[in-house]
Amino acid sequence: MITASASSGVSDSSVTRHPCGVGDALRFLETVRFTSESIDYLGTLGMFKPAFLEWLGSFRFRGEVYAVPEGTPVFANEPILEVVAPIAEAQFAETFVMNPILVQTLVASKAARVQAAAGDRTVVDFGLRRAHGADAGLKAARAAYVAGLAGTSNVLAGRTYGIPLYGTMAHSYVQAHASEAAAFRAFATLYPDTTLLVDTYDTLGGVGRVVALARELGPSFSVGAVRLDSGDLYDLAVRARRLLDEGGASGVRIFASGGLDEQAIAGLVARGAPIDGFGVGSDLVVSADAPSLDLVYKLVSYAGEGRVKTSPEKPVLPGRKQLFRIEDDGRATYDVIARAGEPTLGRPLLTLVMRNGRRLDQVETVGALRARAARERALLPDAVSRIERADPPYLVEVSEALQEYQRDVIDARTSRT
Amino acid sequence: MITASASSGVSDSSVTRHPCGVGDALRFLETVRFTSESIDYLGTLGMFKPAFLEWLGSFRFRGEVYAVPEGTPVFANEPILEVVAPIAEAQFAETFVMNPILVQTLVASKAARVQAAAGDRTVVDFGLRRAHGADAGLKAARAAYVAGLAGTSNVLAGRTYGIPLYGTMAHSYVQAHASEAAAFRAFATLYPDTTLLVDTYDTLGGVGRVVALARELGPSFSVGAVRLDSGDLYDLAVRARRLLDEGGASGVRIFASGGLDEQAIAGLVARGAPIDGFGVGSDLVVSADAPSLDLVYKLVSYAGEGRVKTSPEKPVLPGRKQLFRIEDDGRATYDVIARAGEPTLGRPLLTLVMRNGRRLDQVETVGALRARAARERALLPDAVSRIERADPPYLVEVSEALQEYQRDVIDARTSRT
Repeated sequence: MITASASSGVSDSSVTRHPCGVGDALRFLETVRFTSESIDYLGTLGMFKPAFLEWLGSFRFRGEVYAVPEGTPVFANEPILEVVAPIAEAQFAETFVMNPILVQTLVASKAARVQAAAGDRTVVDFGLRRAHGADAGLKAARAAYVAGLAGTSNVLAGRTYGIPLYGTMAHSYVQAHASEAAAFRAFATLYPDTTLLVDTYDTLGGVGRVVALARELGPSFSVGAVRLDSGDLYDLAVRARRLLDEGGASGVRIFASGGLDEQAIAGLVARGAPIDGFGVGSDLVVSADAPSLDLVYKLVSYAGEGRVKTSPEKPVLPGRKQLFRIEDDGRATYDVIARAGEPTLGRPLLTLVMRNGRRLDQVETVGALRARAARERALLPDAVSRIERADPPYLVEVSEALQEYQRDVIDARTSRT
Repeated sequence: MITASASSGVSDSSVTRHPCGVGDALRFLETVRFTSESIDYLGTLGMFKPAFLEWLGSFRFRGEVYAVPEGTPVFANEPILEVVAPIAEAQFAETFVMNPILVQTLVASKAARVQAAAGDRTVVDFGLRRAHGADAGLKAARAAYVAGLAGTSNVLAGRTYGIPLYGTMAHSYVQAHASEAAAFRAFATLYPDTTLLVDTYDTLGGVGRVVALARELGPSFSVGAVRLDSGDLYDLAVRARRLLDEGGASGVRIFASGGLDEQAIAGLVARGAPIDGFGVGSDLVVSADAPSLDLVYKLVSYAGEGRVKTSPEKPVLPGRKQLFRIEDDGRATYDVIARAGEPTLGRPLLTLVMRNGRRLDQVETVGALRARAARERALLPDAVSRIERADPPYLVEVSEALQEYQRDVIDARTSRT
């Protein structure tokens, strides 16, 4: 039996990460099989013995998994998931355990920063078209909702996960009409409470045509918002707000999109831009400023003995571990990475979620995951939920016992190279 | 009928892009259907009329598509694909046309830069585990191979596309043995021509153990390479080369991986590092320095008339277009974006690939796409294939006739807002 540990990478200890996608990893482990077509293909490579290929046919994952509950924030180098299984089972799991956790953790972490910047304003995922494939777009919508966004424009994500759907009109709808005014009138007739996209030709001109429509329709006008999608969003929002208010359409809210990320949103909010909601796309779904995460999945124990790597800058903490969050008066103060079985130092975050290849945890709705993420975020110091890097970073200690065990394992290994 | 045009974005005219993924977009258009389950879900949203939902049940894409052949390099603002279809068909296509083209174009463009940096050294995609999901990893392997990499460690990509497979041993294999020497001996017995991963504990110590194994096995030693995966790769490669040569293992090549991108590889090559091949992972598959691409898909013609948007910084060239590559003495000198139907100005790059919803083009192997990409790259000026941004950038003109048409369309639109 080995233990393999997936941890959140060592690169930047001042960034809070929101692990997400653990459920997908567990589903993979429950269902992974080698089909006869796959085994036939592997046979054509001429690299594997017949006995191995036959063994693949009855392969099942029968190990144990411990994981941090989805949505619970973690920090650099902390274990997110541990697999205890025969080496082949743990090894086959590597890529498919890392892959869904990696992409969803990236997007959830980015989304949490975006929502932190927006405060209590509505933020919606508009990113599907710029995601790295349709599957990545679906997972991004899920992760962003778990991390606190209000919803998504991705209809499949609505259907698959029950995430609230948001949509506005397309530029092509405006372009296909004889005039923008005609397009607005037609769209508001079909969808009275809609959001009208006003930047196809000239944003303030578009806002003026919304005001004109309000006058034309009188009490039956119920357009909910205008959407600014280009240009200087602060300046346009201020002018649009004035035009709407002076034109008797003060009930129309302002929604902004177009190249937004947490920094841009924080800037608009800090200047008091009269914007009620944001749509974020490309930068969110690819986590543009950090499109990769040095999530690692490493062997930490084999045949009952702790194992390490000693490659420079890639330390491995040996053996099974537990992650404790130390809380004081209802707020988390620091974390401790400890050996499994150490006396409780705080709230343990790794729990047994799979035994003998079967999930033990209840499959939770995205709504439940979202509520947990919000609850767990609220327990952390305010500094680590801001979009600036926390300075000093949230403290993550390695327990005395684990440090000593790491030294022992390194010494034992060195003595027998 | 409308024409919608997907173009490569306007952000940086000094970067060469290798459009890839058009075949996936065409396959989507050929096969897109709304299942009864999907339609039932849309019904639950309470937003759509029964007649529309019923119409979705018989929806097919029956339009025409023009596209630049996969692998042909293009530049900023150039059209990659045009759809001519009834507006609903063209509109439904938007996200699923953009999505596969976007992710594969990003990775192919990155891979071309990585291979340019490596010259004729072997470069292999190692990125699956860090891709934005398994599907993105599969497509990344495909795009990277089309753009010139030698192969991938992604076995499914080998099976799906016939891409050459490369693999080396895992750290966990070394860790699971009593000693690194024992691990090397066992692995080389199973796979005599393998690559041994030498950095689990101490890279030069690992190389020393490979030399010892060569002495031990004598003529039956046929290990192909060692792989350095951490540390100062230049320094380690120089020392490893010396150890191997002095130890009588001069036939063992050196393969390097670990956080590499085109800049790091170019640096190693420029310093003359004795490295025979590279593995690239995270930075390749997420196109780390440019994880998004401002690919746009815009309505350019409706009811026989050209259409534009005039949002700032998002110009749209109206109407159906052709992209000409002007060649002189076998080398491309500049491109012209022209109106469709203009007299030939050079080699036309947009060709009809789908009519009445059926593909007209032969589905090509990735090998054929890769050969085309290499051929087309060789026709371009050397400056645009280097990893530095081309200065001055490759020239892309808009034809007189298209400029005039754009002015006319803008004028006509302005007169009837």
